[in-house]
Amino acid sequence: MKRPELVLRDFCIPVNPYFPTAGMFAKFHEQLETGLKYYPADNAEIAHVLAEVLGLDPASVVMANGSTELITWICELLVRGGLATPVPTFGRWTDQPRELGQAVHEFPLRAEDGFRLAVDRFVRFVRRRGAAAAAICNPNNPTGSLVPREDLQRLLEELSDLDVVVIDESFIDFAEPDDIPSAASAAAARPGVIVIKSLGKNFGLHGVRAGYAVAHPRTAELLRRRLPPWNINALAEMLVRALPDHWAEYEQSRRHVIRDRLCLHHRLARLPQLVVFPSKANFVYVRIPQVVDGVQLRNRLLTEYGILVRECGSKSGSDRHHLRIAARPETQLDQLTTALAAALEELGSPRDAKAVGA
Amino acid sequence: MKRPELVLRDFCIPVNPYFPTAGMFAKFHEQLETGLKYYPADNAEIAHVLAEVLGLDPASVVMANGSTELITWICELLVRGGLATPVPTFGRWTDQPRELGQAVHEFPLRAEDGFRLAVDRFVRFVRRRGAAAAAICNPNNPTGSLVPREDLQRLLEELSDLDVVVIDESFIDFAEPDDIPSAASAAAARPGVIVIKSLGKNFGLHGVRAGYAVAHPRTAELLRRRLPPWNINALAEMLVRALPDHWAEYEQSRRHVIRDRLCLHHRLARLPQLVVFPSKANFVYVRIPQVVDGVQLRNRLLTEYGILVRECGSKSGSDRHHLRIAARPETQLDQLTTALAAALEELGSPRDAKAVGA
Repeated sequence: MKRPELVLRDFCIPVNPYFPTAGMFAKFHEQLETGLKYYPADNAEIAHVLAEVLGLDPASVVMANGSTELITWICELLVRGGLATPVPTFGRWTDQPRELGQAVHEFPLRAEDGFRLAVDRFVRFVRRRGAAAAAICNPNNPTGSLVPREDLQRLLEELSDLDVVVIDESFIDFAEPDDIPSAASAAAARPGVIVIKSLGKNFGLHGVRAGYAVAHPRTAELLRRRLPPWNINALAEMLVRALPDHWAEYEQSRRHVIRDRLCLHHRLARLPQLVVFPSKANFVYVRIPQVVDGVQLRNRLLTEYGILVRECGSKSGSDRHHLRIAARPETQLDQLTTALAAALEELGSPRDAKAVGA
Repeated sequence: MKRPELVLRDFCIPVNPYFPTAGMFAKFHEQLETGLKYYPADNAEIAHVLAEVLGLDPASVVMANGSTELITWICELLVRGGLATPVPTFGRWTDQPRELGQAVHEFPLRAEDGFRLAVDRFVRFVRRRGAAAAAICNPNNPTGSLVPREDLQRLLEELSDLDVVVIDESFIDFAEPDDIPSAASAAAARPGVIVIKSLGKNFGLHGVRAGYAVAHPRTAELLRRRLPPWNINALAEMLVRALPDHWAEYEQSRRHVIRDRLCLHHRLARLPQLVVFPSKANFVYVRIPQVVDGVQLRNRLLTEYGILVRECGSKSGSDRHHLRIAARPETQLDQLTTALAAALEELGSPRDAKAVGA
């Protein structure tokens, strides 16, 4: 029997819940009919608007129909002779090259290191495997671990002979409140480096399908020429054009999400059955006890407690004993932690059990 | 000095003005926040919904971020050894292969034939040039001429050894009120034929970026595997999911547009300075007198009379003496024809001049 008071809470999709603001949505509503009836601007024009907001050189920015469009085209055009990537990672980075018949060299991140990327070991791995391309999510998805700026700089220098090194920064706005450790300026300066970013995650609009790449003007021009010239829809254009007037609100929302993630980490760490890994994204990666099956736990959380989390068994380099839990407003955390504690107990891991540490 | 009563009228963008209905827009508004906050379904799922509405085999349908995404990928993956296309045509069919370094073999359509495609001559042209691919807009854009079903069937048979023959049917819903002469079922049956279609034109939403391909399941699978797997935005998904409940209204709107095109043709044909070509699309292609420059005419129509038309000088196979005029509600035609007659006279072609016929 379903409990009548069950309120569904989504801790699965990592989205900024504080943006766009109600005022921005009101504007989108006003512009909807006209926006949809007429053609949006082309890629280069919208990229120009975005570059100005982000303080980047427009010649280095390429707009895309989501970061997935960029991953698809980068693998199609630039990945030859295999791609190395730390795992677990965003699924498209392992699946896309394989679908094209490319070798994918998976470099396993280690729980005992908190899933931090050991840059020197990774560079040696790339050499040993003879990979000509590499892709790194920073912060990593699903673990949330961040490669610090100096390490990343070293990695880009060490691998500067590769055809391409892609840094997927879809979650980097949630890494630090003040100094966002983006490699965008490094990418704009080196022909072999591309930074890509989904706009859906940080701007809270997964359905809009918008993303961009930052690259050396020569690399950006190659991508711009090969991608469909009219790939940006009216809503994505409205979003980008609204950003200059709402940047302060975005900054505020971003900081709010970072506070939510810290709070989520703190609350999860109080559950003795969980190992909680350090995260610089807007989600937290946790390990559940070996006696509990992640799929059963996810299903029970949803059906009995109205809580949706991402069970990570389908991800290469992860398994059914790991969950990704998205940062949400603090007011929702009681429901989450109560449900987790109860469901874990019901599935055989009592509250006084101790997490097996990393 | 600008006339205060100037009402701007867009006869440039060929869009269905009667769809989506106000009721559908009301639903889009209701769904906007939720639709944009969450991920849309993937390509295959949305293609399935569309295929059911259109009475097609879902295995033959591939959704795209506008027909341009399909043109880009078809040229990238399937066009090797040159593409033949009748001109004038939609610009991407001449520009895209060229941008990839492919030869484009332009087959000039003749004004004296009313820009009808002479299928046998085109087939001989393809052979003579040794092209391995062909693309035909049907109805043609910008001329509006239609290849009749039997001719098209013959063309597909004659060219069945080519790598690919693409029929771009973006405007075909406006060809006939009852029996739409689509080649979709022929495409689903032959691995070398692809029908593509923009959804923006017929469903009145250029900003939504949606289109689809119909092809043999094997060809469809190839495209589906190579295109980005999540390429459909939330608004395009809302549109597709709304279609089953609003199909009767769409049918009505489509017939209304056909009546508007007939009416537009009739009214334009009464201007002695114009040669008006037969059209089966939602626009009409006209020739203006040699003494008048099309760019000057377009500019004068816009600044003095508030009328926007497409001057076709930039299109290969057309020139500055041709305009494409979109079908609009009949109530707007007085403003159009009055402006055209006056502007032509002001630019040196008096009302009693006679058009130089085809």
